[in-house]
Amino acid sequence: MSKKPSIPKGTRDFNPEEVTRRNYIFNVIKETFSLFGFQPIETPSFENSETLMGKYGEEGDRLIFKILNSGDFLSKVNEKLYSEKDSNKITSKISEKALRYDLTVPFARYVVQHQNEITFPFKRYQIQPVWRADRPQKGRFREFFQCDADVVGSTSLWQEVEFVQLYDAVFNKLGLKDVAIKINNRKVLSGIAETIGAEDRLIDFTVALDKLDKIGEEGVKREMREKGISDEALQKLQPLFSFKGNNEEKLNSLKDLLRGSQMGMKGVKELEFITENIEVLGLQTASLNIDVTLARGLNYYTGAIFEVAAPAEVSMGSIGGGGRYDDLTGIFGLKEMSGVGISFGLDRIYLVLEELNLFPETVSQNSKALFINFGEKEALYAMKAITGLRNAGIKTELYPDATKMGKQMGYADKRNIPFTVLAGEKEMNAQSFTLKNMKSGDQSQVSFTELSQILSE
Amino acid sequence: MSKKPSIPKGTRDFNPEEVTRRNYIFNVIKETFSLFGFQPIETPSFENSETLMGKYGEEGDRLIFKILNSGDFLSKVNEKLYSEKDSNKITSKISEKALRYDLTVPFARYVVQHQNEITFPFKRYQIQPVWRADRPQKGRFREFFQCDADVVGSTSLWQEVEFVQLYDAVFNKLGLKDVAIKINNRKVLSGIAETIGAEDRLIDFTVALDKLDKIGEEGVKREMREKGISDEALQKLQPLFSFKGNNEEKLNSLKDLLRGSQMGMKGVKELEFITENIEVLGLQTASLNIDVTLARGLNYYTGAIFEVAAPAEVSMGSIGGGGRYDDLTGIFGLKEMSGVGISFGLDRIYLVLEELNLFPETVSQNSKALFINFGEKEALYAMKAITGLRNAGIKTELYPDATKMGKQMGYADKRNIPFTVLAGEKEMNAQSFTLKNMKSGDQSQVSFTELSQILSE
Repeated sequence: MSKKPSIPKGTRDFNPEEVTRRNYIFNVIKETFSLFGFQPIETPSFENSETLMGKYGEEGDRLIFKILNSGDFLSKVNEKLYSEKDSNKITSKISEKALRYDLTVPFARYVVQHQNEITFPFKRYQIQPVWRADRPQKGRFREFFQCDADVVGSTSLWQEVEFVQLYDAVFNKLGLKDVAIKINNRKVLSGIAETIGAEDRLIDFTVALDKLDKIGEEGVKREMREKGISDEALQKLQPLFSFKGNNEEKLNSLKDLLRGSQMGMKGVKELEFITENIEVLGLQTASLNIDVTLARGLNYYTGAIFEVAAPAEVSMGSIGGGGRYDDLTGIFGLKEMSGVGISFGLDRIYLVLEELNLFPETVSQNSKALFINFGEKEALYAMKAITGLRNAGIKTELYPDATKMGKQMGYADKRNIPFTVLAGEKEMNAQSFTLKNMKSGDQSQVSFTELSQILSE
Repeated sequence: MSKKPSIPKGTRDFNPEEVTRRNYIFNVIKETFSLFGFQPIETPSFENSETLMGKYGEEGDRLIFKILNSGDFLSKVNEKLYSEKDSNKITSKISEKALRYDLTVPFARYVVQHQNEITFPFKRYQIQPVWRADRPQKGRFREFFQCDADVVGSTSLWQEVEFVQLYDAVFNKLGLKDVAIKINNRKVLSGIAETIGAEDRLIDFTVALDKLDKIGEEGVKREMREKGISDEALQKLQPLFSFKGNNEEKLNSLKDLLRGSQMGMKGVKELEFITENIEVLGLQTASLNIDVTLARGLNYYTGAIFEVAAPAEVSMGSIGGGGRYDDLTGIFGLKEMSGVGISFGLDRIYLVLEELNLFPETVSQNSKALFINFGEKEALYAMKAITGLRNAGIKTELYPDATKMGKQMGYADKRNIPFTVLAGEKEMNAQSFTLKNMKSGDQSQVSFTELSQILSE
């Protein structure tokens, strides 16, 4: 085994700087979740396969990582099935567990399993890795973290209002000003489809509308025509293509367009409640904009749909999203539990903060000083000081070996440790330390008290 | 699917209180690792199978969770092999990835893979889950966290000294006073075996000696005799059975016993360096005791061996352990990299803190106040106050629905939220709030400023 080892494709090692920066983002998100009354839960990395399979569509089933049963797993496969040598059919016989694919299905399972211990409405957050056997590509990994906050057990729209505030609070704390929070409503999309007589083509219709940004009005119309939407229907849609103005103006256009659809008007009312209350409460730096082309996750959202766009100067796509799903726990037999939630895209937020140089310098967990090792007696003298400094909460290290000074200084330099402390016989006799600023090169002889003061600054 | 869902055996869901308490322990450990100059890394949850297989012995190979290849995995199995239907032989053909079994092997892999980016000596810590297909039993899980700190690239014994201080610092911060840190040295055990002429029975000999606590002197002697250790040899061992006194006295006995073994005397010198320097530097509340019966992980340790025992009043066994292994990265082709490290047993520490009632109350991340929801106008009034309080860092929530007051009060009660805030028409007209202490039942009418002051206390 002399070949240099590697890791599976789509996975990553994180070095100290990366871990520290990721934790900085996690901590801001966690603190804000907690500030808004969300409580953390954690679920196992793997679930029983039956909990996950069939919940994410055929594509999802394929992308779920399955864990091989332990022991003589083939003994459970009968001869007839075995002789077919069909990977698909044999999978459920030799694998009973699978890695978490997202946090929503395990959360639904958790709620149903622990329903008697939970006080509803249940506001939970969960920050854990998920795994997908997707083809790895730039920015898409096989192991990545999801950061979700959801409320289950209430249909109140105040929760949507709070999620908008929560996005604003997190991105503001991260120094990411002026993010655009886009909001839409599934009922509005249904209402539009109903109005133009395309209820049965809701998905085709929204998929096409979603591309307005990319392919323009004519492109969207062409695609809709191809999907069988009539010219008459497209005529009715015309207001959507010149859908401009502030939220109030957009709501007025929608009320006009959707006056014939009960469902659509219900969606408009919901959008109105959220945008009006946010208007009154105010946001710190984010903006909230109605965007009727927004359709992410249409399969499961039943009310509000959210998406957060990264600042325009970085082309990164969405850095967060969410929405309401009226039947979160129905898949596990618990009916009438409405849920609403949002999620933060950690990896993209990381890239955005990096690109905009927004990681604070103080994020570093680095040692404040390295004590140079001149030999056994000197090292003990240094360790006494180090012990005292650590007791005062000051991060310091002793270079473990009494090697050449150049090597030790080089270590401090490469590790970006701002100070070195030198204490040989002269300093020991004077009960002092020589403190060297690694940036300026300045040196001064100081007492322990002075050392402690300077390093704690 | 109306059967209540469940999770795989040996795994656990963690509710908000458990997550918060676990994070409290993690944070104390992380802060202390960082204080001592250790830096965090993270590695993927799964590694290429060849990275893990063969590193933990036959038993280990069996207990590693293997991940089934995606797609038509059986197509890679040739007909001849397939026809044998041998689970063992087929595994490596249908599974190329496996879940992390510990943090040490992935760390060794990381060091070798990134050797050109790392500044040695490399002080890293890593806190991540590991997975083992062990038979679940009380306190033994299939998914659990390991918390490891290691230094690689230096043989300096100052690192052993620092690890003793680190154990002392962490347990002291956790309020777990007077833990006993036991220390031994592989070279001392080898020296004893050499002295009694049982070099070739080192494992048998140490396994028997390790049981002194449980089966007593006669039991140990009986087992050693059964393993073929002569009466003459046992005679020479006699000092070990009355091995008492402080570390200095124990070192003197060992020097006497091992004077004929160069290896043994080297181990004694190492023990002496560590215990003497710890004596001078002092510990906060822990004690450091030489224990020649300590033999954990003898297979890989080559120098110091550590174990931390929980306080005597809880029967919990060890809550931490570690040691030096002279050839950490050799398995991946990088020679002469000495490593030394320690580990904290999170699950056991949790149980000990729980049993001794040592979790601080402030660990709770709970909201400070619940605003009662009296309807749309009142809720908006409440949300304005809540927004202001959150901007000041005070955790508060609005009950999302305008349901019966009893239900809302019951929610605050069950969630252990200490205050409720009531604001109806009367309060709105007076620009005030009624604050209710949920414990005492006391109520008072306060301004926003007063509310903010009381809740931030």
